[in-house]
Amino acid sequence: MITLAVDAMGGDAGLSVTVPGAVSFLKQRTDARLIMVGDDALVREALTAANAPMERIDICHASQVVAMDEPPQLALKNKKDSSMRVAINQVKEGNAQAAVSAGNTGALMATARFVLKTIPGIERPAIAKFLPSADNHMTLMLDLGANVDCSADQLMQFAVIGSELFQALYPEKGRPRIGLLNVGTEEIKGTETIKQAFELLQSSSLNFVGNVEGNAVFSGEVDVVVADGFVGNVVLKTIEGAVKFLGGAIKHEFKASLFTKAAALVAFPALKGFKNKFDPRRFNGAIFLGLRGVVVKSHGGTDATGFAYALEEAYHEARADSLDKIEQGVASQLALLAEKRLESEQAVMADNIE
Amino acid sequence: MITLAVDAMGGDAGLSVTVPGAVSFLKQRTDARLIMVGDDALVREALTAANAPMERIDICHASQVVAMDEPPQLALKNKKDSSMRVAINQVKEGNAQAAVSAGNTGALMATARFVLKTIPGIERPAIAKFLPSADNHMTLMLDLGANVDCSADQLMQFAVIGSELFQALYPEKGRPRIGLLNVGTEEIKGTETIKQAFELLQSSSLNFVGNVEGNAVFSGEVDVVVADGFVGNVVLKTIEGAVKFLGGAIKHEFKASLFTKAAALVAFPALKGFKNKFDPRRFNGAIFLGLRGVVVKSHGGTDATGFAYALEEAYHEARADSLDKIEQGVASQLALLAEKRLESEQAVMADNIE
Repeated sequence: MITLAVDAMGGDAGLSVTVPGAVSFLKQRTDARLIMVGDDALVREALTAANAPMERIDICHASQVVAMDEPPQLALKNKKDSSMRVAINQVKEGNAQAAVSAGNTGALMATARFVLKTIPGIERPAIAKFLPSADNHMTLMLDLGANVDCSADQLMQFAVIGSELFQALYPEKGRPRIGLLNVGTEEIKGTETIKQAFELLQSSSLNFVGNVEGNAVFSGEVDVVVADGFVGNVVLKTIEGAVKFLGGAIKHEFKASLFTKAAALVAFPALKGFKNKFDPRRFNGAIFLGLRGVVVKSHGGTDATGFAYALEEAYHEARADSLDKIEQGVASQLALLAEKRLESEQAVMADNIE
Repeated sequence: MITLAVDAMGGDAGLSVTVPGAVSFLKQRTDARLIMVGDDALVREALTAANAPMERIDICHASQVVAMDEPPQLALKNKKDSSMRVAINQVKEGNAQAAVSAGNTGALMATARFVLKTIPGIERPAIAKFLPSADNHMTLMLDLGANVDCSADQLMQFAVIGSELFQALYPEKGRPRIGLLNVGTEEIKGTETIKQAFELLQSSSLNFVGNVEGNAVFSGEVDVVVADGFVGNVVLKTIEGAVKFLGGAIKHEFKASLFTKAAALVAFPALKGFKNKFDPRRFNGAIFLGLRGVVVKSHGGTDATGFAYALEEAYHEARADSLDKIEQGVASQLALLAEKRLESEQAVMADNIE
């Protein structure tokens, strides 16, 4: 049985989205249980109205709600009994294997970091997301905005946690291929930080493919794309914009004339197939990675279908036991890195003595 | 009459692309002349074979060619009679209003910068491109990779030259709306450099809209998107990848069954309209901006149609007299900025005295 803690009050629409999303998810996953966290009476009322399978739901009371525009530090300080925080506490206390919230991203990250702490060796958590790529492949991209400035060491850490997550979820695909997002594939490209990260990655035992350009997000040439949070966020928003814009442009072409309008009817199944494939709700669920607990962030403005997908994302991670695997992987990768550093320092010392 | 200097030997395919591209361009633009720069005999032979309108073509001999993988500094030092350099010399000497090359980007930028120099007040040139956006709008984005690290001052300079170019080409659209690419629209978002650039832009007399996210490239909410060359390049390559990937995904859906295959035939006009609209060849022609001369870079691997579009881009800039306008705009914007800085320094001094 997989148990997820749900911030039932979070998101732009709160219970009216989280409850139907939860019900739809439970219908799909019969080996899952949910702890719905929020105002006891309101949550119970919404669940009853939605005919929820109560035998697989616990309600956990929380008296506060973090507002969507509340500054993270204030939420952390003043909202110790918020539905968001209590949901994360469920993970900390071992009652749930993952927490899901559609609340304020900054507050969720600050709270998750404060309550769960980072995995030893990981300085800062990252936000990661699986994106569709060529040949029905999925590419994991991180960081998507948790850290606008990253050191080479941090980029290396993102590569490690990304690689371990990918491997935990898709063990059949072999060692994940890691790419460093850059302005060209040559080793000499990029900023000083990127060049240093390249060296760290190359000396690691990860399956590092090298630098990749922006198109690698879709090409399927790598499994994990590593970037700092500034670049990653801009790229993610660009992709969202591109999908919307190109979708709109196709629609526009089919509305051009009576003939193309008629053609659209005939083409409907194919166009619908395309639309479903890139429905942003299917890619709802950003993973907070590098924490000692699984936390998934749903888009604040999503609907019940989108929220169910975020629960699905958390479910997959919990079922794959991704956290244990990530923690072990990080420990062994970082031990190796420390060893290599010591070796190279000793080599430098030996050179100096000679 | 508009005269363009063409590096006839540049690009992956050299004359076999540049010559038919030139012929197709001249057919379209009867008020244009070309100076075809390269090996005299080879160029003449190719032009004759292509039935080129020789009354509007001059051939200018250049004995060398810069290789596509030649390091920029070596090209600059050893290839003083390259077709690329001689084409840029034509602009420098006033024989042509713009130069176009499909050659090695790094060498072209280094040579253009060395020969033409930057506009006073502009520290480094940027690479800019017009991209299609919503409602048949065009958005200018820069820098696309000339500078991986940029100071706030440089980002401000990019905004100025981008604004002036946009205004020169589309005077009917009013004062160009400038957006700073960032991870959120709030003023406090981004790296230190981005925050400083925000302040500079806000105190300028540009029509600065504020921070924009990645989707602004397509939404038409701004006319000019400003980013450093690292972010800009990654975004551009991501867009190219997205267009290719989504185009492939549509094709895939139409190949799913006999029915959808038949539907594809009916939908062909609409799908072709879509394909033409986003044909990357139509957006060939990156503008080197901030130099004392107009230089347009064609994609190295484009075909004759793509090369003709790059010539078209240079033609538009030359016809709009964009360079003079940019130089004037830069001078007045930077004078204003210097004045504001002086004022604020004086205010600080006055505060200190009190």
